[in-house]
Amino acid sequence: MKKISRRDFLRGSAAGVAGAALTGVMGPFGLTALAEESTDDTAAVTAPKYVFLFIGDGMTYSQFQLASSYLGALADETDDGILDGNVALNFMEFDYTGSATTYDSSSFCPDSASTATSIASGFKTYSGIINMDESTTVKYTTFAEQLRDELGYKIGVISSVNLNHATPAAFYAHQASRSNYYDIGVELVESNYDYFAGGGLLKPTGSDGDQTDIYELAAEAGYNVVRTQADAENVTAEDGKTLIVTENLADSDSLSYEIDRADDEWALADYVSKGIEVLENDNGFFMMCEGGKIDWACHANDAATVIYDVLAMADAIQVAMDFAEQHPDETLIVVTGDHETGGLSIGFAGTDYDTYLDNVQNQGISFAKYDSDYVAAYRENGTSFEDAMVDVQALFGLVLPENATDEDNATLVLTDYEVEELQEAYQLTLDGYATDTEGNTVQTQGEYISYGTYTPFSVTVTHLVNNKSGICFSSYAHTGLPAAVFAQGAGAELFSGSYDNTDIHDKFVSLLGLEDLTV
Amino acid sequence: MKKISRRDFLRGSAAGVAGAALTGVMGPFGLTALAEESTDDTAAVTAPKYVFLFIGDGMTYSQFQLASSYLGALADETDDGILDGNVALNFMEFDYTGSATTYDSSSFCPDSASTATSIASGFKTYSGIINMDESTTVKYTTFAEQLRDELGYKIGVISSVNLNHATPAAFYAHQASRSNYYDIGVELVESNYDYFAGGGLLKPTGSDGDQTDIYELAAEAGYNVVRTQADAENVTAEDGKTLIVTENLADSDSLSYEIDRADDEWALADYVSKGIEVLENDNGFFMMCEGGKIDWACHANDAATVIYDVLAMADAIQVAMDFAEQHPDETLIVVTGDHETGGLSIGFAGTDYDTYLDNVQNQGISFAKYDSDYVAAYRENGTSFEDAMVDVQALFGLVLPENATDEDNATLVLTDYEVEELQEAYQLTLDGYATDTEGNTVQTQGEYISYGTYTPFSVTVTHLVNNKSGICFSSYAHTGLPAAVFAQGAGAELFSGSYDNTDIHDKFVSLLGLEDLTV
Repeated sequence: MKKISRRDFLRGSAAGVAGAALTGVMGPFGLTALAEESTDDTAAVTAPKYVFLFIGDGMTYSQFQLASSYLGALADETDDGILDGNVALNFMEFDYTGSATTYDSSSFCPDSASTATSIASGFKTYSGIINMDESTTVKYTTFAEQLRDELGYKIGVISSVNLNHATPAAFYAHQASRSNYYDIGVELVESNYDYFAGGGLLKPTGSDGDQTDIYELAAEAGYNVVRTQADAENVTAEDGKTLIVTENLADSDSLSYEIDRADDEWALADYVSKGIEVLENDNGFFMMCEGGKIDWACHANDAATVIYDVLAMADAIQVAMDFAEQHPDETLIVVTGDHETGGLSIGFAGTDYDTYLDNVQNQGISFAKYDSDYVAAYRENGTSFEDAMVDVQALFGLVLPENATDEDNATLVLTDYEVEELQEAYQLTLDGYATDTEGNTVQTQGEYISYGTYTPFSVTVTHLVNNKSGICFSSYAHTGLPAAVFAQGAGAELFSGSYDNTDIHDKFVSLLGLEDLTV
Repeated sequence: MKKISRRDFLRGSAAGVAGAALTGVMGPFGLTALAEESTDDTAAVTAPKYVFLFIGDGMTYSQFQLASSYLGALADETDDGILDGNVALNFMEFDYTGSATTYDSSSFCPDSASTATSIASGFKTYSGIINMDESTTVKYTTFAEQLRDELGYKIGVISSVNLNHATPAAFYAHQASRSNYYDIGVELVESNYDYFAGGGLLKPTGSDGDQTDIYELAAEAGYNVVRTQADAENVTAEDGKTLIVTENLADSDSLSYEIDRADDEWALADYVSKGIEVLENDNGFFMMCEGGKIDWACHANDAATVIYDVLAMADAIQVAMDFAEQHPDETLIVVTGDHETGGLSIGFAGTDYDTYLDNVQNQGISFAKYDSDYVAAYRENGTSFEDAMVDVQALFGLVLPENATDEDNATLVLTDYEVEELQEAYQLTLDGYATDTEGNTVQTQGEYISYGTYTPFSVTVTHLVNNKSGICFSSYAHTGLPAAVFAQGAGAELFSGSYDNTDIHDKFVSLLGLEDLTV
């Protein structure tokens, strides 16, 4: 693709035609205007003033298509015997779509540190590294930093997981390891970005708990540090640089899974709304918002929780879309994922050509909350399998054959084969894995394939909810499916086509007229 | 999308700008010319004269990305410890890409009859129905028939599976059931299309073998009926309407899987080359070419065979690309799939974030040929497991632990857990499934999930080749992943974006200026 120097870019009245001269692909703008602009190769083009990048961690075709088909299954209430199909999520209807390969320097099943590095700074690197080369000697500058320095944009970083986790970190940090949580936190403070919001910082006082608290450092650096939702609600644009973490909501100090979220608890969308309030300014802003727990739920093979977190992401995107409606010629929204997680399929060997996606609505809790709020007690109390299954029926809809009544959805009644799987997993959950002579846990190959590193009982429960809905996972890790890209608004046409994830970076740089640091 | 009446279309010198006025999306053509054309809504636009549609049955993101990553793994021979990534297949680099939802009126896991109907005639219908509505009372006209009747294009239909199988049939037949093979064959003859080539017709003398042979009907209708490769090689454009089937090559009278194909045996690409020779004419042509055995191999969860058939498809596409190079402004090539098959993932629970894709190169035979040429003999001779495993090592690369030498690839040496799986499957293959009191075969739920309807031993062998390469399938049926769409050439820009599979039809109709029969 021909690149136009950033010096050729002007932000002004000829809004919307930005991408046209770059690609020869034309957006839904005036044809004559385009022809006029494009006769001169160095013509002024327009960088979008408001740029949103949504990253569904672990989200690609399988994940959003499942959510879309699930909504379709729920909506299809007519008894005409004809399936009405999907209900498209808002971003699935964006004008421009692309597809990006995701391999990193380590694997075709890359991690979030390297893939977010590719998106943020345009380079491949090893899994686990954030914005550094494979030898961990060269630091890469992200386009978010460039936007801060070259164009004076305000910058916001939002995540449903910890703000020093790999994906958000890749927009401000440069570290040899994603596990350098304290150093990443220091870089967060030093970034001088204008808005951070999401899950609590991991290891805010260092691995040994003996370093100055990152929150303290942030306050010293002038951040308005907010640690409760009540205080977050009172944040205004006048408060300046803001760091919001609402602590102790859920597993690993992340935001709650959407399926577990209390009615009065902020959704991901609320963090985006507040972010727009803080970031909006005459110079423009860039906001990266990660739906990070889509990935976590995919790792755990919990399809219902995946679906609800994808829908929470769509709700967050809607906030940006509503903003874009007020600034149609100046706003760009890009939605993508960093990699696929879980090898998710809409379809399962045991259900053949059928799906029963509406069964998913019987699940009302995430695997994580079930683990903490129920399974921990089973272990402590040595609860019987039958008693545990009373909870399972109430929380997941799965019914033991002896308890099945005419009112139960037949497809949720367990077979003897499935009951046996559950019993085995339950016993293992109470007893723990075998240990070797030195006392180390020994997991057999079969156990690893069946349960991964998850609680045997709860992962078997979600596997069965999935399978009985016609859904299956094939891995507890990331896989090699390409990432989907959706783009809407000023310059969106640039994101059409099939390309590599590093090209997502290059397209932002090109569109925004930033210096190309990858050459 | 605004539609332009077919009366407004002219094929002529202003080549290439066809899609522009339709969509406001502009291809890599003269900007000024576009602006001039598009100032008048009824302006003359240009339909591509040569139109290729390649359908990889069961092929979407997972399948071609696996083939691409496999090539990348083979090509990555440097020992710098940095993965070089994918090798893109030719069509993956087309200028325009899209994504199409595939659900049909029956299921989110649709079949090939209904999905090919959606592509060919623009309507959803039940699985199993070809170009008729759900009540099987209304027949739908395909855009291939319209091209024949309205524009006088010559029409070609090629498939690696039987020419009266669902996907090829959907471009000429209208039947309540895809299993009406004889009636479909009759419609093939009546279509008067100019070129049919591929796998032999199923039931050419009807279900009871008492009807006039379809090949005889074809000859009577003026078709040059060719049933050997030697004769096919001698076909020229002067022979007129041609029906080529090279019989008895492989399973179910289809073409050989690419992995099994003899060096002197025609590849799918050769059928395309010959097709161009027969079809090229001043009026234009449309060719649909199906890579049908990608689907069959996915059903059987045989990843190596999938990969080679995807590559054979890419070779066939290359023939069209070479033709397009001679006729750049007049040729459109669209590549898509009808649905995903197998729930294929690049990644597996047992291999975590690693893949060992180059292990796949150790497999040298398809599951089907292994079944017919080896497993049948094991059954007949009561071959021992150990003797069978000698073949398995030679043909698939899997090594029993007791036979492993230092020269063996460690990742292909079987674990005890895997050997046990193989032994169990082998015994079941020799003994057969249990039977009930009435003598009917009884397959347990666990057996169905493990083996589907395939030979337990061979499907376990391919599952292990897959898993030890970091690949996994989750179904023996179709799944709900969207289909990928790639387009290159005149009007290709129309195929950008995210849409439904019925829109693929609508885009062809719109672009080619055909009457819109869907309204």
